[in-house]
Amino acid sequence: MEFTLKQIAHILKGEVRGDGDVKINTLAKIQEARPGQIAFLANPKYEQYAYTTNASAIIVAKDFQPRKEIKSALILVDDPYSSFTVLMEQYHKLISFQKSGVEQPSFISESAKMGANAYRGAFSYIGNNTRIGDNVKIYPQVFVGDDVIIGNNVILHPNVKIYARTRIGNNCVIHAGTVIGSDGFGFAPQEDGSYKTIPQMGNVVVEDDVTIGANTVVDCATLQGDSTIIRQGVKMDNLIQIAHNVEVGKNTVIAAQVGISGSTRVGENCMIAGQVGIAGHIVIANQTSLGAQAGVSKSITEEGQRLLGYPAIDIKDYFRSYAVYKKLPEIAHRLRDLEKKTTEQASDTFETPNNGQN
Amino acid sequence: MEFTLKQIAHILKGEVRGDGDVKINTLAKIQEARPGQIAFLANPKYEQYAYTTNASAIIVAKDFQPRKEIKSALILVDDPYSSFTVLMEQYHKLISFQKSGVEQPSFISESAKMGANAYRGAFSYIGNNTRIGDNVKIYPQVFVGDDVIIGNNVILHPNVKIYARTRIGNNCVIHAGTVIGSDGFGFAPQEDGSYKTIPQMGNVVVEDDVTIGANTVVDCATLQGDSTIIRQGVKMDNLIQIAHNVEVGKNTVIAAQVGISGSTRVGENCMIAGQVGIAGHIVIANQTSLGAQAGVSKSITEEGQRLLGYPAIDIKDYFRSYAVYKKLPEIAHRLRDLEKKTTEQASDTFETPNNGQN
Amino acid sequence: MEFTLKQIAHILKGEVRGDGDVKINTLAKIQEARPGQIAFLANPKYEQYAYTTNASAIIVAKDFQPRKEIKSALILVDDPYSSFTVLMEQYHKLISFQKSGVEQPSFISESAKMGANAYRGAFSYIGNNTRIGDNVKIYPQVFVGDDVIIGNNVILHPNVKIYARTRIGNNCVIHAGTVIGSDGFGFAPQEDGSYKTIPQMGNVVVEDDVTIGANTVVDCATLQGDSTIIRQGVKMDNLIQIAHNVEVGKNTVIAAQVGISGSTRVGENCMIAGQVGIAGHIVIANQTSLGAQAGVSKSITEEGQRLLGYPAIDIKDYFRSYAVYKKLPEIAHRLRDLEKKTTEQASDTFETPNNGQN
Repeated sequence: MEFTLKQIAHILKGEVRGDGDVKINTLAKIQEARPGQIAFLANPKYEQYAYTTNASAIIVAKDFQPRKEIKSALILVDDPYSSFTVLMEQYHKLISFQKSGVEQPSFISESAKMGANAYRGAFSYIGNNTRIGDNVKIYPQVFVGDDVIIGNNVILHPNVKIYARTRIGNNCVIHAGTVIGSDGFGFAPQEDGSYKTIPQMGNVVVEDDVTIGANTVVDCATLQGDSTIIRQGVKMDNLIQIAHNVEVGKNTVIAAQVGISGSTRVGENCMIAGQVGIAGHIVIANQTSLGAQAGVSKSITEEGQRLLGYPAIDIKDYFRSYAVYKKLPEIAHRLRDLEKKTTEQASDTFETPNNGQN
Repeated sequence: MEFTLKQIAHILKGEVRGDGDVKINTLAKIQEARPGQIAFLANPKYEQYAYTTNASAIIVAKDFQPRKEIKSALILVDDPYSSFTVLMEQYHKLISFQKSGVEQPSFISESAKMGANAYRGAFSYIGNNTRIGDNVKIYPQVFVGDDVIIGNNVILHPNVKIYARTRIGNNCVIHAGTVIGSDGFGFAPQEDGSYKTIPQMGNVVVEDDVTIGANTVVDCATLQGDSTIIRQGVKMDNLIQIAHNVEVGKNTVIAAQVGISGSTRVGENCMIAGQVGIAGHIVIANQTSLGAQAGVSKSITEEGQRLLGYPAIDIKDYFRSYAVYKKLPEIAHRLRDLEKKTTEQASDTFETPNNGQN
Repeated sequence: MEFTLKQIAHILKGEVRGDGDVKINTLAKIQEARPGQIAFLANPKYEQYAYTTNASAIIVAKDFQPRKEIKSALILVDDPYSSFTVLMEQYHKLISFQKSGVEQPSFISESAKMGANAYRGAFSYIGNNTRIGDNVKIYPQVFVGDDVIIGNNVILHPNVKIYARTRIGNNCVIHAGTVIGSDGFGFAPQEDGSYKTIPQMGNVVVEDDVTIGANTVVDCATLQGDSTIIRQGVKMDNLIQIAHNVEVGKNTVIAAQVGISGSTRVGENCMIAGQVGIAGHIVIANQTSLGAQAGVSKSITEEGQRLLGYPAIDIKDYFRSYAVYKKLPEIAHRLRDLEKKTTEQASDTFETPNNGQN
């Protein structure tokens, strides 16, 4: 795909300085860009690269005053970073939604319906009564079970597996190997030490604008009528575990290998770093930030905290404690010394008056 | 599916009070049940809901004495919770084993055999010499390699991958994307710093009544004749790693994202919480309970312990130490103060007699 | 497969003692070997088994002097362990590369090319312009996207998913369910708290002799022209997360469930134990050894360190500190005692001169 700089300026409502007919095919960082690429300059500390970059064009602020000659063409906008992200998203959509048509063999139930401008890859499977919106791209080997509803502009990468009764909103992207709607982990202990399976009859609801990484798992809710819910705008990475009846709040970001246990409610705009574990049946307040590998065992009710450790505590407190932790052997040693001295002094103190009395 | 209350009472060997012909289609919690659903009342603190629930029927204890009018029909049994779990399991079997027949295209080797009442989904693959029992449900895109033996009443959800030579017992359920029998992680270091692959020639044995979650991995044993073994009644969650030659004991429950390293033997009726890591070549005693994110580096020989931390210690000790950990900066400060005071006192003590001598 | 002992001795450039025509079909440990198997003796503490083993043959050192009668045939070599690993690797190749031909239905784009001696399993998918070398085994349900290049002697186990533009070298093995080239986790925060997707346009490069376990994920690099790189000889286990733009150095070994965040460079010949987490944008020096569940948040610049804990510190220091951690409540108690005593002594010391003045 190739665009003229004029076309791009039009999308960004920006003004061209230089050759508006120059061809742009991709985006790049200003310090690495090559001919045919467009970059942006927002942070003044990158200004030096504006004078040396090989980018065919640079998005700059309207009030940018070059101190040297720039060989790239320019697009002048109000907010270069914001314009660049708009461009990235447009580009992302263009490259992601290229596939169309039906590859054979593929399987679709007679009772299933799929909207306009669809792609169904070879060996993909769509079950009974499933309804899929417009402009949905189903890559090869995807499984979509019975009674599923999927919105518009959704991409299911190779081998995504959607269990029966799942609901997926608009503009969602799910990466390869991810499983949505598998049975929650529920077993009723019996007197002989064995377990009976609790049937998992709820579903998963994924709202609009959600991205989920590869080989992640989202379990369905336990009871019919209940849902595990991934709210609008949530971004999830790879190899994450979301247990039954969890709710992840709007625009929360979850890094790889995080695990969230059953029935926990995570707030909005939280940032959860890699390998964090969150216990079941608790609540995480909005804007909570959890550092890598933190373990959360109790509800977090105050918004906007940054936590670390197991159980997670304030991140600064954790690091202050850890600084001492590293010196614990020395501290234990100093304590022993002190105990010894104090005992000696105690006998000194005790002996002194005696001596004085002699 | 729909049953009359009489039919359900018959299964539970219970007695109906009210309309035995009322139609029941699913199970629910008493506080959330809707018409057409059956709930149970075991814990007295939920009794209030018996008078307000919309459930068509409630399973109650024989000696239950309502204090107000109940509009739901009742089934009287000895143990309502136990009866409800029986019902759940029956229901689970009914909904899980609905699929039957063969969807095309699917692949089955001429030398493979599959029992009665089978379901083989589209794009499923069954290899050479593989023998599969009765009432087995193979969902779409499942891979079953060569020389595999699978028992009766087994469900393999979409895209489960069973490597060659695996043995799976009766009544097992394996969820989407899980891999059974992949190569153990074995490499022989060479003098130049590189590694040669140690061929992994053993297999995996999964005994009866085992449930395994989604995107989990169980590696095969290293040597021909050896097995990685998942014993009867084990319940495993999603994204778990079971390395080569591990044995997991009967009725042990393993939560999501746990990793168990090579050749370790986990006892019976253990409870292993999420993200726990267990080192290789060790033994975990029966009834061990490991808290979330615990790391176990040495054998646990005493049964019934509850452990936490890395390396894992008694859970109460861990929390007691952690309570102090949070105050370490203060403790370090107090220690410094004390050292200062003690030094001052030491000089005071030393000076005092001098002063006295003046 | 079956070989005579003479044929094996020829491969190992060793000398036969005993029946060179004995048939060997697999390898085993000396203490467990059965007839038809070949074992080795390198470590003197296993010598006892040489006299009792049922192995048909044993690989021994040239200067080995049996103290009793050995019923197995022998192969005399310079270095028995090294010879055994050579044999293992040969055997591994033999058993791994048995499959050939094309199973139907399978999908290959007209513009794709595949070399000699190929295996393409049923329901496998090969995209546009993809070029695959000789002796490559593509198991059932594998997905290989567009514009991929794969070398010779590569095995892709069932349902491996290779995204577009990935490069894979020679002699690589990738296990079931693993995803190579999924989108990096990149989102640009917007003023309203939502995120825009940063298009991921780079790729993944896997060099020669790499083994990757099951259900692992390697994300592609962010920018076009950039790569996430797995260097020659790297061995990776199951359920690992490798984020965008990471580079893993030559012959580094990574155990299960490790997570490496974006743009981090891991050195050569590192050993990374299970469930380790490594932050983004840092460097890990060559020969670094990270203990299980360690968390690394800053660059490690000195080579050859062994680290543990979060943030990771020297493994001996960690254990020394942990030994004190377990006694923290006692230490806090002793500190309180000491403070009490010191206060008492302080008043004693203060009172003494007063007393003296009276």
